[in-house]
Amino acid sequence: MTAGESLAGAAERFRTAARELLETAAEMPASLRASMAYALDAPGKRFRPALVWAAGEWLGLSPDTLTPAATAVEMVHTYSLVHDDLPAMDNDDWRRGRATVHRVYGEALAILVGDALVTDAFRVLCRERSFFAAGAVLEAVEALSGAAGPSGMVGGQVWDLHQAPGLSVAELQRLHRAKTGALIRWAVEVPAILTGRTDARAALSAYGAAVGLAFQIADDILDVVGERAVTGKTPGRDAALGKTTYPVLFGIDRARQMARTTLAEAEGQVDGPRGETLRALARYVVDRNH
Amino acid sequence: MTAGESLAGAAERFRTAARELLETAAEMPASLRASMAYALDAPGKRFRPALVWAAGEWLGLSPDTLTPAATAVEMVHTYSLVHDDLPAMDNDDWRRGRATVHRVYGEALAILVGDALVTDAFRVLCRERSFFAAGAVLEAVEALSGAAGPSGMVGGQVWDLHQAPGLSVAELQRLHRAKTGALIRWAVEVPAILTGRTDARAALSAYGAAVGLAFQIADDILDVVGERAVTGKTPGRDAALGKTTYPVLFGIDRARQMARTTLAEAEGQVDGPRGETLRALARYVVDRNH
Repeated sequence: MTAGESLAGAAERFRTAARELLETAAEMPASLRASMAYALDAPGKRFRPALVWAAGEWLGLSPDTLTPAATAVEMVHTYSLVHDDLPAMDNDDWRRGRATVHRVYGEALAILVGDALVTDAFRVLCRERSFFAAGAVLEAVEALSGAAGPSGMVGGQVWDLHQAPGLSVAELQRLHRAKTGALIRWAVEVPAILTGRTDARAALSAYGAAVGLAFQIADDILDVVGERAVTGKTPGRDAALGKTTYPVLFGIDRARQMARTTLAEAEGQVDGPRGETLRALARYVVDRNH
Repeated sequence: MTAGESLAGAAERFRTAARELLETAAEMPASLRASMAYALDAPGKRFRPALVWAAGEWLGLSPDTLTPAATAVEMVHTYSLVHDDLPAMDNDDWRRGRATVHRVYGEALAILVGDALVTDAFRVLCRERSFFAAGAVLEAVEALSGAAGPSGMVGGQVWDLHQAPGLSVAELQRLHRAKTGALIRWAVEVPAILTGRTDARAALSAYGAAVGLAFQIADDILDVVGERAVTGKTPGRDAALGKTTYPVLFGIDRARQMARTTLAEAEGQVDGPRGETLRALARYVVDRNH
């Protein structure tokens, strides 16, 4: 599958799952349902769900068996964006051409939408019990909490927020491994966790780590050379905030080369015809323009 | 055990568990570790952990086997207080005589402390795997997500926040069943979930529902008659905010009588010597002055 096909398929499957989730949910306030729907309906790339399904393809699993995990990881990612956009955090009014959740629904509800999404993600993930052993699903729950929690995504966000000028390469890598890398790695590893495939998990983990790093380098490069109309972000924002990035540390050319090397590492982990989509997604990460 | 002994024991066991949690956690930003410790170290009543252990006593379980669940529920409760206190929500600078997390660490970090606590609570809960079957632990995870999520605590908070003046009794009960009742019920039910004791779960669920209701009526009464030095809260705050409460709907005397009736219902669910602590905690809920 090409990256475009994989992402389009993931977007479609995620849209269906998110709609079903809110339609079948127990009673909740109408404003919360509407604001959760708005957040989940944002025009995201659905890169993490695509990774879950592509890694499942590598293991020969049917997409349906991974819908709960793919939905859960995008819910966690979505919550993190809603909270990151808050006035006390990045204070963003716009994301991908749409008003951010707190701009539409107010700050209090935006905080609660994030809280609802991250909490509910664990309930959704538990639905993997229909397809896999309870012990394996529990391991996936524990790993998601680790990837998203204080030593994962939330910790990375704190490192980013309190970033002193002039991070070392090691500090920058630690920040991104936690902030974006951990959740990307979870997405890639979860099919191996659920099936208890320890051997495959090691290769997928290495692939995920490389893709996470390539993703971040590419993001940093896009911040310098990207066009607002395409990325939906203000160019040069990182530099304006005095943030350390890969282009700052190494220059654009060297950063591009690093992204290429890391991509090759990722591709090397997932040989064979079943790895086609994973390899395509890795290339997409580096070649994308938004 | 008296309620005082139960709460003191719960406070001590929770303190130890929270310290161990942060000491053995994987690498995280120092500011996040410090602010999480500050939040977890707040002088709370530890009512929910006490309920977990008391319900365990009723089932003949040793306290150690329930430490992960008791710790997890207090982490979820703590996160909800940290977020509730935020400027965009209740905007409280003080809680129980201490500056709130956002007053000490800033608003951004307070949002992230809450995010970290709720996420990490699920990892902590997974440690019940050392004592109970994976399927039962997974059920406890799913139930915690339900109790804390959009149809539970977070939903109740939204109903509370967007409260129109003059709620009906049914609306008020729905609000509190979600906002405080669901998590209290989870705390009481979790020992039965973990041991697969369906019969006991029904009685504990009924006990938990009654205690949750009694807790809220007592809270509403304290808002009217409580002393600031004892409750640590501004008296008459609910009325000043135009919130519907049990005393508003029924008057103080009738509300007190309802609390008594509900207490008797709770006590009736947990007969026998092993139910002593649960019954004492139910009485405490109604008789407390803070």
